[in-house]
Amino acid sequence: VGYGTRLAITFAMDAERLGADGLLLMPPYLTEGSQAGLQAHIAAVCNATRLGVIVYNRANCRLSAATLAALADQCPNLIGFKDGVGDIEQLTAIRARLGDRLLYLNGMPTAETYAPAFRNIGIPVYSSAIFNFVPGTALAFHRAVNAGDTATVDRLMRDFLVPYVQIRNRQPGYAVSIVKAGVRIVGRSAGHVRPPLSDLTPSEYDELAALIGRLGPQD
Amino acid sequence: VGYGTRLAITFAMDAERLGADGLLLMPPYLTEGSQAGLQAHIAAVCNATRLGVIVYNRANCRLSAATLAALADQCPNLIGFKDGVGDIEQLTAIRARLGDRLLYLNGMPTAETYAPAFRNIGIPVYSSAIFNFVPGTALAFHRAVNAGDTATVDRLMRDFLVPYVQIRNRQPGYAVSIVKAGVRIVGRSAGHVRPPLSDLTPSEYDELAALIGRLGPQD
Amino acid sequence: VGYGTRLAITFAMDAERLGADGLLLMPPYLTEGSQAGLQAHIAAVCNATRLGVIVYNRANCRLSAATLAALADQCPNLIGFKDGVGDIEQLTAIRARLGDRLLYLNGMPTAETYAPAFRNIGIPVYSSAIFNFVPGTALAFHRAVNAGDTATVDRLMRDFLVPYVQIRNRQPGYAVSIVKAGVRIVGRSAGHVRPPLSDLTPSEYDELAALIGRLGPQD
Amino acid sequence: VGYGTRLAITFAMDAERLGADGLLLMPPYLTEGSQAGLQAHIAAVCNATRLGVIVYNRANCRLSAATLAALADQCPNLIGFKDGVGDIEQLTAIRARLGDRLLYLNGMPTAETYAPAFRNIGIPVYSSAIFNFVPGTALAFHRAVNAGDTATVDRLMRDFLVPYVQIRNRQPGYAVSIVKAGVRIVGRSAGHVRPPLSDLTPSEYDELAALIGRLGPQD
Repeated sequence: VGYGTRLAITFAMDAERLGADGLLLMPPYLTEGSQAGLQAHIAAVCNATRLGVIVYNRANCRLSAATLAALADQCPNLIGFKDGVGDIEQLTAIRARLGDRLLYLNGMPTAETYAPAFRNIGIPVYSSAIFNFVPGTALAFHRAVNAGDTATVDRLMRDFLVPYVQIRNRQPGYAVSIVKAGVRIVGRSAGHVRPPLSDLTPSEYDELAALIGRLGPQD
Repeated sequence: VGYGTRLAITFAMDAERLGADGLLLMPPYLTEGSQAGLQAHIAAVCNATRLGVIVYNRANCRLSAATLAALADQCPNLIGFKDGVGDIEQLTAIRARLGDRLLYLNGMPTAETYAPAFRNIGIPVYSSAIFNFVPGTALAFHRAVNAGDTATVDRLMRDFLVPYVQIRNRQPGYAVSIVKAGVRIVGRSAGHVRPPLSDLTPSEYDELAALIGRLGPQD
Repeated sequence: VGYGTRLAITFAMDAERLGADGLLLMPPYLTEGSQAGLQAHIAAVCNATRLGVIVYNRANCRLSAATLAALADQCPNLIGFKDGVGDIEQLTAIRARLGDRLLYLNGMPTAETYAPAFRNIGIPVYSSAIFNFVPGTALAFHRAVNAGDTATVDRLMRDFLVPYVQIRNRQPGYAVSIVKAGVRIVGRSAGHVRPPLSDLTPSEYDELAALIGRLGPQD
Repeated sequence: VGYGTRLAITFAMDAERLGADGLLLMPPYLTEGSQAGLQAHIAAVCNATRLGVIVYNRANCRLSAATLAALADQCPNLIGFKDGVGDIEQLTAIRARLGDRLLYLNGMPTAETYAPAFRNIGIPVYSSAIFNFVPGTALAFHRAVNAGDTATVDRLMRDFLVPYVQIRNRQPGYAVSIVKAGVRIVGRSAGHVRPPLSDLTPSEYDELAALIGRLGPQD
């Protein structure tokens, strides 16, 4: 759920009524807010539902350890913190302050790139976007990170993830576009991205297809 | 109108049906977009209405001169560009490329601070937030900028605008909060800000009241 | 003069002994400093010389209005402030606080781009880098800005300055490289830039030559 | 060694003559440079000495994986890469490209904060600034990181490193000032910082003393 406080509350109540298991709270629309204001916004949404809420630290919603600690006291159903910023110092401060009170999720674009670093600061869980089109590689990478198999991690970084991220970084918003392109490349229908995103160019699409091709069979 | 393309189009059509004179197009929700994607988003909204559209250059919607030129060709009803970023070099490039094809608006928070600079690069129009609570000062400033009366401009900057902006800069989102506080100070009802904004603290409120008090009567 | 405090003082004393008319104080080497620390650094240099000192606001030496006001009280020979940052709000705060106590200089890369905006906030003086290779255009632009001849300002922005800045922005450090290239293009010897700068590529050099060619004779 | 290319070469040759074991190459003075220009600068210094050179990735000297790979080919005595930026994605790209060709060093301010994350992306080595005044804690932390003893790592982060960094972040340049303060607190002479740095305020000094006091005996 997202947008302004009132809309986010409406969505949260709808989601609860329709049987959702939990909520991911996205940043408010456009407006920058103070820590006190962000806290009030998040508390209002949490208080409007009995579902567990995971707050997404990202864009105009960056939470300090102090704000998050106050929220954790105030809202028993605030259960998780998903990070899309990647500031190691800030994450360490948050983990030191809140410990096991929250669930931590690596929510970086191409979470794999950050997975080894995040794992060693107590944030081992991530959702894999590349799993949508190279599930075998995604699983192999996940297993390697968990097992501390750095040879495999390094190899998959070098052969796939680093050049993949290099394509992704060419345009703002490509973090989504490149996943859709990957899904199309492996033969499933994904449609096109919607504005303000734009699709990969044909030559970028071909680069990605070559990268995927080199990985070999995925099952 | 704002949010995603589909919602912005719905709002635009509603606004037209209800007799609006024109539209201010705010950035899309959350997502970063490429220049091509932002162009597609803005063109889609413009094409859905016969109203004139002013695009707000701000946050995740920063337009290059080339994108804006393409949009101006593509959308006859794109009539204006409102700037909330304040990058003189970029504005100069846009003015050089688009000349009189668009209307330019100074949409900076506390537009007065940027009014003299913007005026001399061909962007004389701004909407005054402080007019809501110190209309006399706002008008005097506006007249002084237009008349090139730098003594008055300098005096009002020193006595009011610079210390006002200093309070405003203490928290993200205070650009709105401080206006509401000003309106309350002069005895009109303004209510409180909504999250993720937060109200000025009582001592900041008093500082602002003292600043306003020193300006004297406003009519 | 620049580098650390001790070296800057040595240079300042040498310069005075050798008959310099004044000093431009560049930022300290590498280290970020607090406002109090930057103030101590600048005061130490000013106190070591009887020459007038102009401080360059740039990179790791960004001064607040309060710091600058304290320095102006403390150091009678601090005579000027040269800005290389371009933050209109900050410059307005500095001008409002220090008024005519200091001389203000537009020290932006390609100062012409900022000249109209800076002129209208009380900073009319700039040093022209393009004067080194298109002196006629540089003088015509300067005259037009001073005379408020916006038609000429707009034309020279469109025909030369904006596309010039577009080339300049392609690499960090090109603000210097492009001037050396311009000087070579008009047939004077300028040599190559020294690392960490790099010269324009041949095709960028040709682009610049074409821009200069279109301006016509310069005397 | 640091400053411009010529000065850095002079220093490098002096250092070699005087028996240094290796060199740490700091960023050039002030100037932003292109990747090609930074490469030329670093290569020139490496070529002027037989000593091993470690390049410090920091401030105006941020190297891409491609630049670093070219340098590694060109300069056999470029032996190390010290990072002061902390961009996990960039470090992963560099490690993927250069593998064991270089030695990697965690050169972040308060390197301990980044030690767990860096360790898991193949950068286990760091130099500890806090070792200067809390050697027992520094060693205990180092052992805990290496042993994967996350309970101890978390405890020392919570009890010392996170609140320490919170003081350090209050002013630019405090990364050095706080170390000098720590050394004075434990009774050794450290003198004051030089401008543009400034010393901790008395109350910050007391906060730090309290933090250190709570750690207990250090030997």
